[in-house]
Amino acid sequence: MSDSDSSDTVLPVAVDAMGGDDAPGTIIEGARLAAERFGVEVILVGRPDEIGDVGSIPVYEASEVVGMDAEPASAVRRMKDSSIVRAAELVRDGEASALLSAGNTGAAMAASLLRLGRIKGVSRPAIAVPFPVLNSTPSTLLDCGANADCQPEWLVQFAQLGTAYARRRFDLPRPRVGILTIGEEAGKGNTMVKAACELLEEGSWADGCDANYVGNVEGSDVMMGVADVIVCDGFTGNIVLKSLEGLFDIFRPTVEQTVAKAAAEAEANRNGNGDGTGDDSVLATMNSHIDPMFEYFSPYNTGAAMLLGTRGVSVISHGSSSPETISNAIKTASGFAADGLVSELAAAVQTSV
Amino acid sequence: MSDSDSSDTVLPVAVDAMGGDDAPGTIIEGARLAAERFGVEVILVGRPDEIGDVGSIPVYEASEVVGMDAEPASAVRRMKDSSIVRAAELVRDGEASALLSAGNTGAAMAASLLRLGRIKGVSRPAIAVPFPVLNSTPSTLLDCGANADCQPEWLVQFAQLGTAYARRRFDLPRPRVGILTIGEEAGKGNTMVKAACELLEEGSWADGCDANYVGNVEGSDVMMGVADVIVCDGFTGNIVLKSLEGLFDIFRPTVEQTVAKAAAEAEANRNGNGDGTGDDSVLATMNSHIDPMFEYFSPYNTGAAMLLGTRGVSVISHGSSSPETISNAIKTASGFAADGLVSELAAAVQTSV
Repeated sequence: MSDSDSSDTVLPVAVDAMGGDDAPGTIIEGARLAAERFGVEVILVGRPDEIGDVGSIPVYEASEVVGMDAEPASAVRRMKDSSIVRAAELVRDGEASALLSAGNTGAAMAASLLRLGRIKGVSRPAIAVPFPVLNSTPSTLLDCGANADCQPEWLVQFAQLGTAYARRRFDLPRPRVGILTIGEEAGKGNTMVKAACELLEEGSWADGCDANYVGNVEGSDVMMGVADVIVCDGFTGNIVLKSLEGLFDIFRPTVEQTVAKAAAEAEANRNGNGDGTGDDSVLATMNSHIDPMFEYFSPYNTGAAMLLGTRGVSVISHGSSSPETISNAIKTASGFAADGLVSELAAAVQTSV
Repeated sequence: MSDSDSSDTVLPVAVDAMGGDDAPGTIIEGARLAAERFGVEVILVGRPDEIGDVGSIPVYEASEVVGMDAEPASAVRRMKDSSIVRAAELVRDGEASALLSAGNTGAAMAASLLRLGRIKGVSRPAIAVPFPVLNSTPSTLLDCGANADCQPEWLVQFAQLGTAYARRRFDLPRPRVGILTIGEEAGKGNTMVKAACELLEEGSWADGCDANYVGNVEGSDVMMGVADVIVCDGFTGNIVLKSLEGLFDIFRPTVEQTVAKAAAEAEANRNGNGDGTGDDSVLATMNSHIDPMFEYFSPYNTGAAMLLGTRGVSVISHGSSSPETISNAIKTASGFAADGLVSELAAAVQTSV
């Protein structure tokens, strides 16, 4: 077990240098930022010739790379010298405090499961993703894709794991926990969800982790802040995550283009020339307000999905993450390890269902 | 069977006057607009004393109202003189061409199922909802909530029903059909979806309805226009629908407020007074561009979810629909009936799975 509770040494974060749309460049830059801004040490794992000269940042050699489109489980089993597998081994062997990858999500998950193993008592680890909420702390949705088919009992464990995670990540003393379903009233949902609801309503699961169970959460409430932790099966969670990302990806450029067009028209009206050749002060003012709003809601800025339930911290970033996002995720991963999150997750699931 | 193929008379649309957040006022106004703008006749069904004087629009008396929060199936069974049940009976009895309700969705579904019955060969009717796509025709997602648990075979029928619907509604000669799941490659999904994929890939189902099967669709692609018809179980579909509506409901006011603030600042900068008391021409220009964009993407403007698979046209509108949306939905419902959509749906499912 690599949880840094057991050690006084501050260990570096093992970063898969080869994973991500613009790897290794973006990842290296993110590692540099993490050191400069947050003083968090990193080991870059990957092909030294591709990583190149990175100054004082240590590089751990791994000769193989799991591609973004590779079938995760078989790739991880086959490619024993891949960057993601070697990075997970550094955590397992106590050489690193936590693992970060922006590569193939399934491979990061499989490598973490196979090399770190599960926390005792955990049936299935789950991917937890924080969703931005207007004027409040994010809500964490899990499972966002680790388990396409779920047993009702697993959702109860997700509730326990999510509670420990949200408490630590967002400093919430008694996280509110809900279950994602298709109606407000109790007894709504599909067969699996209805069974999970009954288990969750029974309540004893919440004692050990001090959760506040708030019942059903509908799709429309995912970003409304009605619960701090929202549990669902990995099929549903992944589709919700991707759907909201997809809508964001449509809205942001559409709003930006619409505002730019309107700003040009407003300038032209002012200048009375009607050809839109005024200066760009209206657009600049618009963007100074709109950009921060979109950054706040951007699913790419939460930056750190986490696999909850493995014996070690495993954080998964978007393939399209910027260096800033990578550096934030490295800081988050390091903080989880230093705070002993894995121990807290282990304690949370000890309350039997 | 109430499909107007069998009749030369143009029948009115039976409208549940009592269903909707602002019923009956908004519904009556929508019925008036439908007559004025589109020449579509309506029968308003509900309590005459609450409906009041509506001039030449016929009113069919029903003494009961199924509330928005009522448990649908039992309410429909118990309240035999409710507006939604009576409206469905008018379609069943050949007095109306189609049914429209903006009330309790589950009750509209239950009343349609119980009073109209299923098309021969249809295992389970499904709710079809068109989603806006940028610069293209909408994509239709089904099932959006009629069946929380689904059999793989039902998704094949949803594909057939959706194909017939999309062809008629959006004038698509050979609709592209996909299945909602959690990866791009074949063989991704939960157990039910994987089984449905195998049936869909087999392909003979598509012959009778002339569908073009395009395979997996991820959550991020729901509004990207990659398929004209996207099938899923009713649990997943309802959560996707509500999640996207929820994000829209957050984004629209947030963008509007942000733009208003920025516009005031831009005006103040221009006027050099810094107190934001300039005229509102920048804001007016902004809104003239932003409002149409949001109207285009608004989930409340597609206006007409349809229950596919019942022996008669049953259209379900949002509870918060405006009179314009109601009038559009009435026109759509009437058009479906006049075009013989039910016959086309029946033909589409005759190809065995």
